[in-house]
Amino acid sequence: MTATNPTLLSADELEQALRAIGAERYHNRHPFHRALHDGKLNRAQVQAWALNRYYYQARIPAKDATLLARLPTAELRREWRRRIEDHDGDAPGTGGVARWLKLTDGLGLEEGYVTSLDGLLPATRFAVDAYVEFVRDRSILEAIASSLTELFSPTIISERVSGMLRHYDFVTPETLAYFTPRLTQAPRDSDFALAYVREHATTPQTQQAVLEALRFKCSILWSMLDALDYAYVAPARVPPGAFVPGTDAAR
Amino acid sequence: MTATNPTLLSADELEQALRAIGAERYHNRHPFHRALHDGKLNRAQVQAWALNRYYYQARIPAKDATLLARLPTAELRREWRRRIEDHDGDAPGTGGVARWLKLTDGLGLEEGYVTSLDGLLPATRFAVDAYVEFVRDRSILEAIASSLTELFSPTIISERVSGMLRHYDFVTPETLAYFTPRLTQAPRDSDFALAYVREHATTPQTQQAVLEALRFKCSILWSMLDALDYAYVAPARVPPGAFVPGTDAAR
Repeated sequence: MTATNPTLLSADELEQALRAIGAERYHNRHPFHRALHDGKLNRAQVQAWALNRYYYQARIPAKDATLLARLPTAELRREWRRRIEDHDGDAPGTGGVARWLKLTDGLGLEEGYVTSLDGLLPATRFAVDAYVEFVRDRSILEAIASSLTELFSPTIISERVSGMLRHYDFVTPETLAYFTPRLTQAPRDSDFALAYVREHATTPQTQQAVLEALRFKCSILWSMLDALDYAYVAPARVPPGAFVPGTDAAR
Repeated sequence: MTATNPTLLSADELEQALRAIGAERYHNRHPFHRALHDGKLNRAQVQAWALNRYYYQARIPAKDATLLARLPTAELRREWRRRIEDHDGDAPGTGGVARWLKLTDGLGLEEGYVTSLDGLLPATRFAVDAYVEFVRDRSILEAIASSLTELFSPTIISERVSGMLRHYDFVTPETLAYFTPRLTQAPRDSDFALAYVREHATTPQTQQAVLEALRFKCSILWSMLDALDYAYVAPARVPPGAFVPGTDAAR
């Protein structure tokens, strides 16, 4: 996808190009997400979404720790450490991962089943693991750029919370407690990452790498919804071994 | 998925359990494969299949080299090296990967486009990369066991070749040259891997790990077809950036 003779962009042009990728490829444009927000899914389908998205949430601290281990200065590490604190909390039951389990619990999924990952779609595992690998293997600049989907997340979170509360009687504000802190955490995090990328992507090659990193990250989130849509929306085709709605694991 | 108190199986029982996994989870049971063999796909859909499957073929030598690097004896390495020779050949234009390019060429895809990977479904990349990671990170026994899908491949290859030749006028025996050597290579390879697993998986724990490795590998192949079916079979939903039939890259 990388142009053969990319030109040097100004920082503002680079930011515009990043935002254009989000406008085209962020997963708020995916049909499964539209269906989720518009109340077109049943409880079993929302369960499948929350169950699979749990693995993404649970691996985000590993993703961030992988990058933390590679960052060269205490200043950068302090900044990035905050993300792990946000997700893992300061005590049992706190933090983003624990709040996601309140969502799966509120949807009627047993916590032990969710955290066992037994019912995960294989495609979810492959996509999320690919994200952690990317952050381990690529340049620090690309790893930081891959987090820039958070530029677009406040919009999707607002849509999601209001849409789900309006349309689903099995969803409550307590169930959606995960999302409220994200409305302030995500902009803080993406402000930092965007400033870093604007400052450090100063050659045509590194700018193209940064754009490609954001496309890659969008493809992670998009492919997770492809797999959910294929497996759980009519005609549902659940792959062998994955979560089957209505089983013992779901109340 | 692992039972909490697995019992020790005899070598024959272990082999039976492995074959039962194939009977349930091998991708010959996937609706996309049935459609491919039964002549239900159009040329563009067969192109999409061959394009994506190319990435699997192209990474198999990397997968095998990753394992080769970990094998402890010359005897084991000689055995495994043969697989790389099969895929990479002895000269330009020979070997399994080159023969796969004859297939994509016969289907009207430009070789440069195929090998650029530009049109790959992200889910294909994540699944194939997960296979290479598995072979890098797991025990040698699990890595060898994950190759055991080849136990089931002669059947699917026979079905595929006869079905595609019968149903598609854009497919010729030359186009399908990839598959003929596989009919003898795959049984030779799976004979070795099966004998290795029968001999070395001698505790309940390692037997369960071997069974799980084969389930994992089946999920790789299965999820690749899920992604193809979702993206290219009606209602087709090609993810951003992936191959769009009828574009310049396809004749």
